[in-house]
Amino acid sequence: MSTTLKLIEYADASPEVRAVYDDIMATRKVDWINNFWKALANHPDNLRRTWESIKQIMAPGALDMRTKEMIYLAVSISNGCEYCIASHTAGARKAGMTDAMLGELLAVVGMANETNRFSDGYRIEVDERFK
Amino acid sequence: MSTTLKLIEYADASPEVRAVYDDIMATRKVDWINNFWKALANHPDNLRRTWESIKQIMAPGALDMRTKEMIYLAVSISNGCEYCIASHTAGARKAGMTDAMLGELLAVVGMANETNRFSDGYRIEVDERFK
Amino acid sequence: MSTTLKLIEYADASPEVRAVYDDIMATRKVDWINNFWKALANHPDNLRRTWESIKQIMAPGALDMRTKEMIYLAVSISNGCEYCIASHTAGARKAGMTDAMLGELLAVVGMANETNRFSDGYRIEVDERFK
Amino acid sequence: MSTTLKLIEYADASPEVRAVYDDIMATRKVDWINNFWKALANHPDNLRRTWESIKQIMAPGALDMRTKEMIYLAVSISNGCEYCIASHTAGARKAGMTDAMLGELLAVVGMANETNRFSDGYRIEVDERFK
Amino acid sequence: MSTTLKLIEYADASPEVRAVYDDIMATRKVDWINNFWKALANHPDNLRRTWESIKQIMAPGALDMRTKEMIYLAVSISNGCEYCIASHTAGARKAGMTDAMLGELLAVVGMANETNRFSDGYRIEVDERFK
Amino acid sequence: MSTTLKLIEYADASPEVRAVYDDIMATRKVDWINNFWKALANHPDNLRRTWESIKQIMAPGALDMRTKEMIYLAVSISNGCEYCIASHTAGARKAGMTDAMLGELLAVVGMANETNRFSDGYRIEVDERFK
Repeated sequence: MSTTLKLIEYADASPEVRAVYDDIMATRKVDWINNFWKALANHPDNLRRTWESIKQIMAPGALDMRTKEMIYLAVSISNGCEYCIASHTAGARKAGMTDAMLGELLAVVGMANETNRFSDGYRIEVDERFK
Repeated sequence: MSTTLKLIEYADASPEVRAVYDDIMATRKVDWINNFWKALANHPDNLRRTWESIKQIMAPGALDMRTKEMIYLAVSISNGCEYCIASHTAGARKAGMTDAMLGELLAVVGMANETNRFSDGYRIEVDERFK
Repeated sequence: MSTTLKLIEYADASPEVRAVYDDIMATRKVDWINNFWKALANHPDNLRRTWESIKQIMAPGALDMRTKEMIYLAVSISNGCEYCIASHTAGARKAGMTDAMLGELLAVVGMANETNRFSDGYRIEVDERFK
Repeated sequence: MSTTLKLIEYADASPEVRAVYDDIMATRKVDWINNFWKALANHPDNLRRTWESIKQIMAPGALDMRTKEMIYLAVSISNGCEYCIASHTAGARKAGMTDAMLGELLAVVGMANETNRFSDGYRIEVDERFK
Repeated sequence: MSTTLKLIEYADASPEVRAVYDDIMATRKVDWINNFWKALANHPDNLRRTWESIKQIMAPGALDMRTKEMIYLAVSISNGCEYCIASHTAGARKAGMTDAMLGELLAVVGMANETNRFSDGYRIEVDERFK
Repeated sequence: MSTTLKLIEYADASPEVRAVYDDIMATRKVDWINNFWKALANHPDNLRRTWESIKQIMAPGALDMRTKEMIYLAVSISNGCEYCIASHTAGARKAGMTDAMLGELLAVVGMANETNRFSDGYRIEVDERFK
């Protein structure tokens, strides 16, 4: 898969884009920028807004980072987004997801996709107790 | 929404179906059967196979029940399955999901759906480091 | 669920719309028009083009009508489209789908949705023999 | 696309995994294992449970194998799962799907996806007769 | 469909939530708040962040408001999100979408969903000229 | 990605297929045929019907070509269809979509996917004013 727009490397980035790149690297304590951000940098508004949202959401809160990364991965798998599966498998592993946890995550994602279709297919009414 | 097939109540169920209902109630320590199973009971093979799978998957393992229920809920939200959202919101709450956790779960599900589209839309190549 | 646009009844329809309604009833050997067509009639181009396509596709060919209706239903279930599930469950039953067949259809749809996610989640390479 | 986890070859498999591989080859009367199972083998529980379900579902019953494989393929196409499209196109062909049947399957899948959106887009109420 | 969490009315809202409600009404020049925001208000972080993003994105720019609302509606139809279809049909109409435009939007959304499946189903390689 | 069926080149095409190819090139004022049509040509009924529909829909009407191509692209991105994203990014650019417009399109598509999940996840009731 190639990129529709060129990736913006740090060396070629505007000061505005560099400021976001610097914040990403400082926040995540890494020394490189992954392709997702280099693609978004073609539209600095999208880059900045998306980073600000991710920075707020993907921080420890009522849920720990491992749980958040695993939810992110589960949705990305369910949507079949290859880039996101690759990057968030890496992200979840970094946050502590073991092989056994990945196996159980996949089992739950698979079962949810199966039973979602049963529920829709049978047009099952929501139980009063669930309302 | 009505049900395509009639719901099979315990009183009307065959011994084979009752055995599954009994196991569901015993395993979950509840005294009622929700509509999902009553619909599946129209096809006893589907009922028994699905219950056996769910029983195996939705048990504590490398991941605790709350995390599993939240992943199940996240996928169901992403797929827009109303019945599953209702039943697994209830399931996740029973397993300890607080309001604050639900808020963060929704934030992650929303962001994953947004960035999944950015990644596909820009046709972003997977970084070497993620392979 | 209400309708965004009003449903066009036969009595209120233009000659152009009536001609499509007449062809639908004659082709399907029924004496009524279901809501899908009454909604599309708000845009006669969409009504006529969609009917011409459906008329061509949903006719016996290399596949018989029951198989075609079951594939239509399987996709509609997988997409969670309530109206389409209701109308094509009716259509498939009319074309000979039994309760047992519906049970097996649901089992296959559920399993396909489950294993689709496993394949994407593990990022499994296509075997040479399948290429 | 690369594989997130390594593929488990027969020679490197545990006795538990080999037993499943042997059953797959015996049941399907083939002498090789496709990548799907080699990936799942990283989590033997997922491998065994998925195989047991597939073995039960993908056997002749009220529906013949060709119809089942075509429904599996139709759902996989609708979900855009590349691996599953490749493997179940092969599976359906092996079960007797001709080129003409594939053409009609695609026509139905395409039309279902189109009309699913019309029905949702117009928010069409389900006809009383379909309830 | 009922709401999983209660809707937060202006009278019951915290000063933080009221500030967002006030900004929504002032920006949109309306005197009421729709249910979407009243639901999000259960998690003030989600309310504020989502509103800030929507406020930035759904403003005239390189694209006019009618085009933006129609793209929003097209995606919501394709995803089958009932609430979003209802609210963005209203939004697009307010921004100038006529009945004829809605008919053409639906035609394009339907055709895109159909041909997306053909492209995936045939596993068509991207032409060199499109790369 | 390889093609399940071989691509039908003009030189190898039947008169029936050539007639469609000729009409595509004449209508679009181009001198080549992209892979989508060469794949569909394996089933001439699908080729002719799809082209007739696209020809009718993707022509200036109440909506201009740029808007139509952008809606087509938005849906294709939301569905994650790689071929369609590549071809309709090209199509939209040819119809006048600038880089800034693409950035805004992606922002709207991302936000729609995010808020669609919020609306479903909270099971928000449609406001009376939107009905």
